[in-house]
Amino acid sequence: MKLKTKNKDVYIITGVAGLIGSTLLSDLIKRKKCIIIGIDNFRLGKLEFIKTFTRNKKFILFEINLNKKIINNKILNILKKNRLKQIWHLAANSDIQSGANNTFADLKNTFLTTSNICNFLKPFVEKKTILIFSSSSAIYGNIKGRISEGSSPHMPESYYGAMKLASESFISAFSFNNNIKSFIFRFPNVVGKNLTHGVIYDLSKKIISKNQYLKVLGNGQQRKPYSHVSEIIKCMIYVIKKKHNKKINYYNIGTNDSGIKVKNIVHLLLKKFRIKKKIIYEKNDRGWKGDIPHYKYSTKKLNRTGFKFHLNSYLSIKKAIKEY
Amino acid sequence: MKLKTKNKDVYIITGVAGLIGSTLLSDLIKRKKCIIIGIDNFRLGKLEFIKTFTRNKKFILFEINLNKKIINNKILNILKKNRLKQIWHLAANSDIQSGANNTFADLKNTFLTTSNICNFLKPFVEKKTILIFSSSSAIYGNIKGRISEGSSPHMPESYYGAMKLASESFISAFSFNNNIKSFIFRFPNVVGKNLTHGVIYDLSKKIISKNQYLKVLGNGQQRKPYSHVSEIIKCMIYVIKKKHNKKINYYNIGTNDSGIKVKNIVHLLLKKFRIKKKIIYEKNDRGWKGDIPHYKYSTKKLNRTGFKFHLNSYLSIKKAIKEY
Repeated sequence: MKLKTKNKDVYIITGVAGLIGSTLLSDLIKRKKCIIIGIDNFRLGKLEFIKTFTRNKKFILFEINLNKKIINNKILNILKKNRLKQIWHLAANSDIQSGANNTFADLKNTFLTTSNICNFLKPFVEKKTILIFSSSSAIYGNIKGRISEGSSPHMPESYYGAMKLASESFISAFSFNNNIKSFIFRFPNVVGKNLTHGVIYDLSKKIISKNQYLKVLGNGQQRKPYSHVSEIIKCMIYVIKKKHNKKINYYNIGTNDSGIKVKNIVHLLLKKFRIKKKIIYEKNDRGWKGDIPHYKYSTKKLNRTGFKFHLNSYLSIKKAIKEY
Repeated sequence: MKLKTKNKDVYIITGVAGLIGSTLLSDLIKRKKCIIIGIDNFRLGKLEFIKTFTRNKKFILFEINLNKKIINNKILNILKKNRLKQIWHLAANSDIQSGANNTFADLKNTFLTTSNICNFLKPFVEKKTILIFSSSSAIYGNIKGRISEGSSPHMPESYYGAMKLASESFISAFSFNNNIKSFIFRFPNVVGKNLTHGVIYDLSKKIISKNQYLKVLGNGQQRKPYSHVSEIIKCMIYVIKKKHNKKINYYNIGTNDSGIKVKNIVHLLLKKFRIKKKIIYEKNDRGWKGDIPHYKYSTKKLNRTGFKFHLNSYLSIKKAIKEY
């Protein structure tokens, strides 16, 4: 690899081939004089999401399993000659349901990816380097009323939420110990074109399958907020540009409406596919163990930065279904 | 091993050879018809602390490194024939300072021990099994004013605190997924006879060394609460007997006074050893990276259970120095 890579800003995106990573990449790549290092293990991420960028000289893709100790001389060489500007750590086991049966999925793919990428990059972080982490509403567990950043306790019910919170904790200590600034963004459900999991993805697969019935996880009454990936990215880029004096900065980001019911998403999808199927709901009000069937965000802290989400849950879902 | 072990209550203590584990063992062993499985890797724990119990038929000691996947048929056989009553998970890297330089120390010895012991015991937990975890004030990071359980955010500054919080998160998801009750006790500094680390341990070593000077970590003005291990154990046993309806129960435990200064501990120790040395303090107000130099507990939640600590920080330190 003979790239002219000297004195440039380096952006690292882990989980670059996922929904959020691939959308972020399409945004960051517009910047001048930068190098973007994209990392994915392609467990959930898909090459097709980032294929248009693989020939771009600014972008270098690495297939690495971040849950194992990272040894990569190519990346080290790039970092030695350039400035590590932003680390976007998005790699995770984003498939929450799978973690209910296999605790190691989240431990490895969410928590160990975090500790490993931090330890690997530690020699290269500078005072101006910032670390951005994609956390989740799942860290709060089942909270009554609107969830604000100060809502307590943080007692996650899913391993997914637990390992996101464990990652936040690690990043907190890492920022203090290495004197760098971190941003922790707690997402609601995020939807968009490049889905790799989640309600639209699952239901669509079932709808176009040959199965006579459409079996829905839970009783369909689960009502959660959804935001569109395009606004999520816009929001994060907006917030990290604002002045922050603290080392650790954490925000609930997403729409603050009361969400949309799974039942309604089912009907929107059936309409889109123009398919009629008998819908079978479960009795359980939760889709899986550790599922939080209802929650609502307070985004007051985010709104104080000047950012507001314009697409509510319904519009975000509509947009994602249209694109998907 | 041909122990008559059938239909008995099994208590598991990880970190059994540490300060808290060894003191707890001396208490639990008084119970009738029980089996106590003690686990330690003897990294910090000391065999001498539990030597008097190793010939007791109720007690079975295992030298196991819990940071690796646990495979132990002897323990499995015991669990198959008996009831898993209480899991006291105390094993951890209790040496906070060491973690500042080696992030893996806390990750392995605090976090992975937690996830591994939970996964190993998962097939044996019953509805009545309870899990008790020794957490720490360090999970809160640097909070202004008194720290209550609802204090926010939980942004630990040390890897020690980060991996205690990560363990709490894992235990939270574990309890929900396996339908068992957990108790998370957040300790202040704990002192007593069987010290393996901490301020009394470190300073004593330095005082009796041949060094002409006594170098103290930090400026000596750090002021933290200390509780004596005997009261900590009494408190935990009291609390877990009380009725709790929630799956996850978490308490700040310890004295709620404003602590004792490191400087004062130095003088108490010099007096005890009857040694005169020139004391050298550092300029830094923290003893190490991630040290929280001042904090105070709110123990209102604990007090509502009816339990009160009687020894304040000064008396706890005095008692520990006398015994050590």
